[in-house]
Amino acid sequence: MAVGSVKFPVMHAVPGIQLGTSNAGIKQTERDDILWIEMHEQSTCAAVFTQNAFCAAPVLVARENLQKNPKYLLINSGNANAGTGKQGMLDAVATCDAVAKLAEKKVEQVLPFSTGVIGERLPVDKLIAALPEAKKNKQEDNWGKAAHAIMTTDTFAKGYSKQVEIAGHTITITGISKGAGMIQPNMATMLGFMATDAVISQKNLQNCLSEAVEQSFNRITVDGDTSTNDACVLMASGQSQLPELMPDTEEMQIFQQAITEASMQLSEAIIRDGEGATKLIKINVQQAFDSAEAVQVAKTIAHSPLVKTAFFASDPNWGRILAAVGRAGVHQLDVDKIAIYLGDVCIVEQGACAASYTEQAGQKIMDQEEITVTVDLGRGNVSQQVLTCDFSYDYVRINAEYRT
Amino acid sequence: MAVGSVKFPVMHAVPGIQLGTSNAGIKQTERDDILWIEMHEQSTCAAVFTQNAFCAAPVLVARENLQKNPKYLLINSGNANAGTGKQGMLDAVATCDAVAKLAEKKVEQVLPFSTGVIGERLPVDKLIAALPEAKKNKQEDNWGKAAHAIMTTDTFAKGYSKQVEIAGHTITITGISKGAGMIQPNMATMLGFMATDAVISQKNLQNCLSEAVEQSFNRITVDGDTSTNDACVLMASGQSQLPELMPDTEEMQIFQQAITEASMQLSEAIIRDGEGATKLIKINVQQAFDSAEAVQVAKTIAHSPLVKTAFFASDPNWGRILAAVGRAGVHQLDVDKIAIYLGDVCIVEQGACAASYTEQAGQKIMDQEEITVTVDLGRGNVSQQVLTCDFSYDYVRINAEYRT
Repeated sequence: MAVGSVKFPVMHAVPGIQLGTSNAGIKQTERDDILWIEMHEQSTCAAVFTQNAFCAAPVLVARENLQKNPKYLLINSGNANAGTGKQGMLDAVATCDAVAKLAEKKVEQVLPFSTGVIGERLPVDKLIAALPEAKKNKQEDNWGKAAHAIMTTDTFAKGYSKQVEIAGHTITITGISKGAGMIQPNMATMLGFMATDAVISQKNLQNCLSEAVEQSFNRITVDGDTSTNDACVLMASGQSQLPELMPDTEEMQIFQQAITEASMQLSEAIIRDGEGATKLIKINVQQAFDSAEAVQVAKTIAHSPLVKTAFFASDPNWGRILAAVGRAGVHQLDVDKIAIYLGDVCIVEQGACAASYTEQAGQKIMDQEEITVTVDLGRGNVSQQVLTCDFSYDYVRINAEYRT
Repeated sequence: MAVGSVKFPVMHAVPGIQLGTSNAGIKQTERDDILWIEMHEQSTCAAVFTQNAFCAAPVLVARENLQKNPKYLLINSGNANAGTGKQGMLDAVATCDAVAKLAEKKVEQVLPFSTGVIGERLPVDKLIAALPEAKKNKQEDNWGKAAHAIMTTDTFAKGYSKQVEIAGHTITITGISKGAGMIQPNMATMLGFMATDAVISQKNLQNCLSEAVEQSFNRITVDGDTSTNDACVLMASGQSQLPELMPDTEEMQIFQQAITEASMQLSEAIIRDGEGATKLIKINVQQAFDSAEAVQVAKTIAHSPLVKTAFFASDPNWGRILAAVGRAGVHQLDVDKIAIYLGDVCIVEQGACAASYTEQAGQKIMDQEEITVTVDLGRGNVSQQVLTCDFSYDYVRINAEYRT
């Protein structure tokens, strides 16, 4: 069901970052479901986590350990270890402890990540039994296998890799993500792991990741259902020859742009793999007073089941977009200043149907597989973009039949 | 597709309120699509309108005229007169003017209401041509025809009627509503018209209606898509022998309860007629700190496509409800205090799966046609209820195929 071309790219190894996979048989026996990531001693590591109050046990442990010089990530698919209470915490720590023993590190230097069904106990014994194999398989050139090991309902593996020139040095940025496009708690949802060989402090790396995520993973939505397990990690192994990246420099600016680009590509891949998705929709809100209201309007459109079913039907039913803008809760919105475009076709001007609009022109845009909606609010000069997909019969089928 | 029993009740006439219908051929020729309501000279009238910034032309006119001693309502189905800009305003006023001429009243004593497709010009000539017939047909015992004339995609007419004893006098409360259950901008959405013969000032009537709507029409949702045309009207003809209702009296308390009950029944009927709905879901949030957070949590659950598709599948997939509670944005939510029930079955206690829970017990509740979800937040003593329905293949079909 993927929208558009989704070829897995050539993945450049990142010096100082090794990845190993193995099969623990958590939900399946044919595909690896454990990913071991080992960072060079000089690495720094940044991460962002779900805002869901019911966050999963591994999220609580990883968030706590992030400030304790982490060097290992342990990721499993097939079980989210969420809604599991105190037992879930003990289980998450037990798996970290097993990694630490094998690696001869402290238990708090391990960050755990789980993705899969909510409310079932993590099969700790199976998971621990599969660790030696994952450790044995570790190598720098293993991103492809890693991308597959973290998949759940994903229909394709998601990767991004680029080499960037900064101040005469080449650094590498490589990353993977998973997510069935939808933010679906029962399946665990979005995970992203990126790595670079740049030299950068934990604090500066965290700022860089937070800024990138704000423009990418935080700007995608399928149904607004924030998961209990979302996490995105950025590792910097410090193995490149480029001197340490410092804030407010041209070098940092190039690095930031490259990390943001990687995050945007990895998050767009999630939307292209949206459960039941047949279309990729880019919603640009322009001339907003501030960023918050731009995102608010864009997400109201992106979450509207009426707008999404119209896109599925390729129906230029612009009244639904107009109504979504109107209910977005923007304070003192002057509808007479609003313009709305489907692709380059103006559908609404001065708050009503554009004089030049024809159903044929709207239909031509709606028939496309990738569609841009632009809303001019006429209130300022801030723009934001949100990505989403359409809402199809298959969305209902996948989510109604999942456990049968 | 209606959920449960939806028999149209015996409708008591309200002395002083006359209703007439006719066919203007706006969208259909076989069913009346115009409703004329005439109030006794002594009547007062209260109304609430959509909060959508893109509210329709008739909403703007009716809101303006509400304070000008209105005596006539003109309702059409088949065309929403929304997204129609300045021309839409001229058209709405033209229809009011035609009513005023026939009735020998001032144009500002007419409130117009439209429900139907957005963005098409109101066929003013057809509408005006049908007015004399509607006026001629007017009578007090005409609520059944009125309920049918305002339908769009509704699969059944929605009515409520009750006689209430207050201080030894019998007053009548009768009302109708329309809405395909969903809040669907393209089809125009929710309208409600209630009438009573009580004697009550415009100001007190408005307070009464606002309080009733807050507990009823503002507590239902199918998909969160607030329409451009929602309106609810309460007329009081002043023809009963009961002395004028005054604030802070026992009489007013009984009246308020009766109006709230009427509003709740009429709004529940809309959810039972939800497009594609197979289940009625009542979401009770208890032990909240305040009303706002109780509604916030209940609506987050009610809007979650994952929760709604699970209900459609009769799948006791409680992780989706838990995740929705967790993402509802309640400040400093302590998940360890949370309990969640499906019917009388405890599914979550102290933030994790209840020890006593079995899939069989959950399945038994999910198989029912009407299901209550209760969430105890453990933060206070405020409760709120929101009604919604499930999310089925037919929802997608109806909304994807509407214009084909």
